[in-house]
Amino acid sequence: MLRFALFGAGRIGAMHAANIAANPRAALHSVYDVHRPAAEKVAAAHGATVAPSVAAALADVDAVLIASSTDTHVDLITAAAKAGRPILCEKPIHLDIQRVEQCRREIAGLNVPVQIGFNRRYDPSHRAVRDAVHRGEVGPLELLVITSRDPSLAPMEYMKVSGGIYPDMTIHDFDLARFILGEELVEVYATGSIRVEPALAQLNDVDTAMVVMKAASGALVHINNSRRAVYGYDQRVEAFGAKGMVQSDNRRATTVRRSTAERTDARDPLLHFFIERYAQAYVDELNDFIDAVEQKRAPAVGFEDGRRALILADAAWESTRSGRAVQVRYD
Amino acid sequence: MLRFALFGAGRIGAMHAANIAANPRAALHSVYDVHRPAAEKVAAAHGATVAPSVAAALADVDAVLIASSTDTHVDLITAAAKAGRPILCEKPIHLDIQRVEQCRREIAGLNVPVQIGFNRRYDPSHRAVRDAVHRGEVGPLELLVITSRDPSLAPMEYMKVSGGIYPDMTIHDFDLARFILGEELVEVYATGSIRVEPALAQLNDVDTAMVVMKAASGALVHINNSRRAVYGYDQRVEAFGAKGMVQSDNRRATTVRRSTAERTDARDPLLHFFIERYAQAYVDELNDFIDAVEQKRAPAVGFEDGRRALILADAAWESTRSGRAVQVRYD
Amino acid sequence: MLRFALFGAGRIGAMHAANIAANPRAALHSVYDVHRPAAEKVAAAHGATVAPSVAAALADVDAVLIASSTDTHVDLITAAAKAGRPILCEKPIHLDIQRVEQCRREIAGLNVPVQIGFNRRYDPSHRAVRDAVHRGEVGPLELLVITSRDPSLAPMEYMKVSGGIYPDMTIHDFDLARFILGEELVEVYATGSIRVEPALAQLNDVDTAMVVMKAASGALVHINNSRRAVYGYDQRVEAFGAKGMVQSDNRRATTVRRSTAERTDARDPLLHFFIERYAQAYVDELNDFIDAVEQKRAPAVGFEDGRRALILADAAWESTRSGRAVQVRYD
Amino acid sequence: MLRFALFGAGRIGAMHAANIAANPRAALHSVYDVHRPAAEKVAAAHGATVAPSVAAALADVDAVLIASSTDTHVDLITAAAKAGRPILCEKPIHLDIQRVEQCRREIAGLNVPVQIGFNRRYDPSHRAVRDAVHRGEVGPLELLVITSRDPSLAPMEYMKVSGGIYPDMTIHDFDLARFILGEELVEVYATGSIRVEPALAQLNDVDTAMVVMKAASGALVHINNSRRAVYGYDQRVEAFGAKGMVQSDNRRATTVRRSTAERTDARDPLLHFFIERYAQAYVDELNDFIDAVEQKRAPAVGFEDGRRALILADAAWESTRSGRAVQVRYD
Repeated sequence: MLRFALFGAGRIGAMHAANIAANPRAALHSVYDVHRPAAEKVAAAHGATVAPSVAAALADVDAVLIASSTDTHVDLITAAAKAGRPILCEKPIHLDIQRVEQCRREIAGLNVPVQIGFNRRYDPSHRAVRDAVHRGEVGPLELLVITSRDPSLAPMEYMKVSGGIYPDMTIHDFDLARFILGEELVEVYATGSIRVEPALAQLNDVDTAMVVMKAASGALVHINNSRRAVYGYDQRVEAFGAKGMVQSDNRRATTVRRSTAERTDARDPLLHFFIERYAQAYVDELNDFIDAVEQKRAPAVGFEDGRRALILADAAWESTRSGRAVQVRYD
Repeated sequence: MLRFALFGAGRIGAMHAANIAANPRAALHSVYDVHRPAAEKVAAAHGATVAPSVAAALADVDAVLIASSTDTHVDLITAAAKAGRPILCEKPIHLDIQRVEQCRREIAGLNVPVQIGFNRRYDPSHRAVRDAVHRGEVGPLELLVITSRDPSLAPMEYMKVSGGIYPDMTIHDFDLARFILGEELVEVYATGSIRVEPALAQLNDVDTAMVVMKAASGALVHINNSRRAVYGYDQRVEAFGAKGMVQSDNRRATTVRRSTAERTDARDPLLHFFIERYAQAYVDELNDFIDAVEQKRAPAVGFEDGRRALILADAAWESTRSGRAVQVRYD
Repeated sequence: MLRFALFGAGRIGAMHAANIAANPRAALHSVYDVHRPAAEKVAAAHGATVAPSVAAALADVDAVLIASSTDTHVDLITAAAKAGRPILCEKPIHLDIQRVEQCRREIAGLNVPVQIGFNRRYDPSHRAVRDAVHRGEVGPLELLVITSRDPSLAPMEYMKVSGGIYPDMTIHDFDLARFILGEELVEVYATGSIRVEPALAQLNDVDTAMVVMKAASGALVHINNSRRAVYGYDQRVEAFGAKGMVQSDNRRATTVRRSTAERTDARDPLLHFFIERYAQAYVDELNDFIDAVEQKRAPAVGFEDGRRALILADAAWESTRSGRAVQVRYD
Repeated sequence: MLRFALFGAGRIGAMHAANIAANPRAALHSVYDVHRPAAEKVAAAHGATVAPSVAAALADVDAVLIASSTDTHVDLITAAAKAGRPILCEKPIHLDIQRVEQCRREIAGLNVPVQIGFNRRYDPSHRAVRDAVHRGEVGPLELLVITSRDPSLAPMEYMKVSGGIYPDMTIHDFDLARFILGEELVEVYATGSIRVEPALAQLNDVDTAMVVMKAASGALVHINNSRRAVYGYDQRVEAFGAKGMVQSDNRRATTVRRSTAERTDARDPLLHFFIERYAQAYVDELNDFIDAVEQKRAPAVGFEDGRRALILADAAWESTRSGRAVQVRYD
């Protein structure tokens, strides 16, 4: 039974709390949030305690789950690592790659498992695409197309501190591409437009973007993003190679199809957002983390994966600003 | 080059005329219709002559296509057979099985090819289902489900002489079942309701029907019919057996799918009716008839197939009226 | 918090136990099974006690869930009703309609809620079909087609006491038809074949069946059943009416589609069986039962629904044996 | 009745010849090919004459269809325009934009209709996507994704004179993007890999490519290409905007779906290549050209469309070689 301290009691923190509470191998011991009433609410829902401080939270648990705001991640990772607590941390590690590098150095010798919350790797459908690719089912991979569109823009307050579309949203797609490819991306081109929210211009951000990347083997990757898909959270992957194609499609609440005089086979809107679409993925992610801790093995999605996805996000911004394909180095 | 006389210049006759005219191995020589202006119009469209009489039409051609009203079929078949002209005749042979038996006797020794126009056997998708079944792809056939719904009711004038739903509409499905099964049906249960047009009550007809049949092997067959599907002409077949299932689906004008906030993946209405859905089937049916004539072989869909489908239609009416499953005999 | 006694600790009992344990409004208090080790195992998994007798089990709980063998249902219902315990009982109530009638009389005045476990009513997709029909989305219902095929035959030992295909398997479809129609079925025709397991001949049972029913309004219903679908548990509903059609389709483990030189868009096999396909339905069923108890309202799926489905199953056997459509009376 | 001279009697010329011959408003008068036996064969198939020279071919017809090798297009366009013959010319106009500009100048004042054979504009499904976009069905267009993959590489002899992937293959997608967008593309990024045929390295060509383009409005366009899709000719379009999404999918020979123990709903391979997939488009293209000539209006797909698609193809090569997004100018 792994006793968890949860950092961050917002929407995603509350979801993780429920998953921990429902997991027979885990228990929610304590909750910490700078906004104490949020911590109290989540703690109360699952019979956990409210930790008065980070230090207190770290003192008496077996593992930590970090779901607080992005700017707190590296400090919490460092503190938890120094306390010897295995860490499951939401993405991204940090928006500033320098802070990520510094954190990497600080925790380097501590030998504490760190797993980054790239939930999509645990989606059964995306995972099946990856498994098919790795089994050689499509032959050498030649084209990978990732469609990734949010149902709606987050509030402007969040957008201001989000780091922009690439480290905030596309970062999941960068990681998913690496996961499926099984090799590194060496070149990134990205471009974007403001098509949803004009106020993003003040943030030098975009809400609609396209990325093309090249892997070491020459395989090409495309990602397209929008911050607003009215028909729901659109998450698809298409892997194409010498022997064929494997695609993962969206999920809907039902399998119902409706036919009328105007149209046939109309289906439900897509599941609304990540909480709904990746519900099972979050459960499986937690189980995989617990497995790693119990088996004393490295987590499947490590700190280095979080770092590399951020390097790709930075390269995407550099490309968007320069209009050039950017060569990527990870050392 | 097979020169055809066409009997009947209505909607379906005009379609056959166009197919004959476009076929490089056929020519439309003459058109006969009791309503002479109709014959003139179709003949003019394809540079054919108007035949002044049935005898004249039969005098100087290589083959006949009979697309006149149902009550004229047996007389025309008999006349054409006596004139030694190969015959492609629209279904049904006749509504009265006694007239069919009489016709059978009259043409018995004449050795003239007669093909009945069961167009659905030539639909590429239904045919692929049959081929899969006959190749053993689904293993021994256990369940066969045929969905067959018209877009709208024909005019009451036509309904009055149609013979009712089973010989007029379901007869196609009876034939398709025999085609796919590759064995004979031995038992028929049928029931119906009036759900579309109350005036059908005066004709002792129904517009909504369900049939269950048993084949000699024990395979079970279901047919469901409606005279009005607002989303288009609904024509599907599902063959299920020990090794799996093969299904044929409908066709649409495009492959487009539309997604909005209300629904996703909505497709076009189905192709409107038999002229659209079975356009290719009518072309292939004609080619197969020409092949049979040229190769001096029996047509693939013979007089006996037309007769047996009518026996099944009669059994369906008997069952609907008695509430009992009817044992079918073909001798 | 509703404390449950569970009767029956077999496969389906174990599943119900897990659902009760995971439900925040329920607790698994005790487990009873004539085979005590089974009860012990399930009880241990959820920290419940093993009840030494039925009476003991009924003594100290708020509700009972009956998942024991079919022949014990009416006695347990009667005992629990006399003890004043709300009851959620797996289908069927009993195989013998006389025993059902007797049970009905015995519990008539006791005013204890009894819910029958027709899980399919809670499947989100089938339920959406029913909701669409009841909202009038397809207009007056004209045709209802239910496809219901098990992945494989149960062991012969079970088959011997199953009551045969109609009360054992089709009973779910009878109930689903009533649920979607919102009106009573007045006529039943059924026929079957042995296509899967020849040994069923000794049981006078069949493994492949087709049913056609007529509702009071004239709406027609078709059910087709097989005891062996190699591609998975096939559960589909199609409701057709004056304004269109609504269909519920199967579920698969992923949304993946695979394309190779031989075939395109190939999807996963269907979810294996009821435990997988109706996992969510069982959870929702339990919640609806708890709602009914808490709100002191009648359960949505009552004893009378169980009784009527059995009357239809009996009518199906009568029809299969007589070859006649059977008029159904429920009084 | 428009009498055509056909230039080029290869595979695509033969197809156009058949379409002209089958069109009731057109006649194939003569065929010219530098390889005379090819001309003879096509002419014989449709009762046309073999033209001894270009001049002879132009002398006595109402229109010309140019389906000869790419390097002959501008000379034939110029000659036909000077002879006052309306022109339907296969894409591309020429591989060298200078030759295109020169041709443009030479035919500028002649006022002869020139239509470029961008067949995909006439595909009913792609066209429906465009119509939906232009009707505002998806709102302001934000993302356009074009998947375009050939079934197999052409022979190396052809590849050597093809101009490479962008003017040879992607040019169709450039035109389709312009057609759907209804506005001009202002920026092009392209990159490619050799994944299919290593020998392409000697031609400085690629066989696998990705393009990202930006339109004047900020709408983003992605194209992905492969020279080898083993499952058939893959041609899909996805238009996404503020109000939803419209997608066109591929076509198959049948609508059949197959389910076995290993997989469900497997469909046919895609139609093999452009001759099969765009069969109807070629017919409609010809009809639209005849309409334009008869109605004395400009063709819907003009010389300028051919020129702009080539400018985009050139920009794609420039981008692939420089690693930069290229700003596009059309003046």
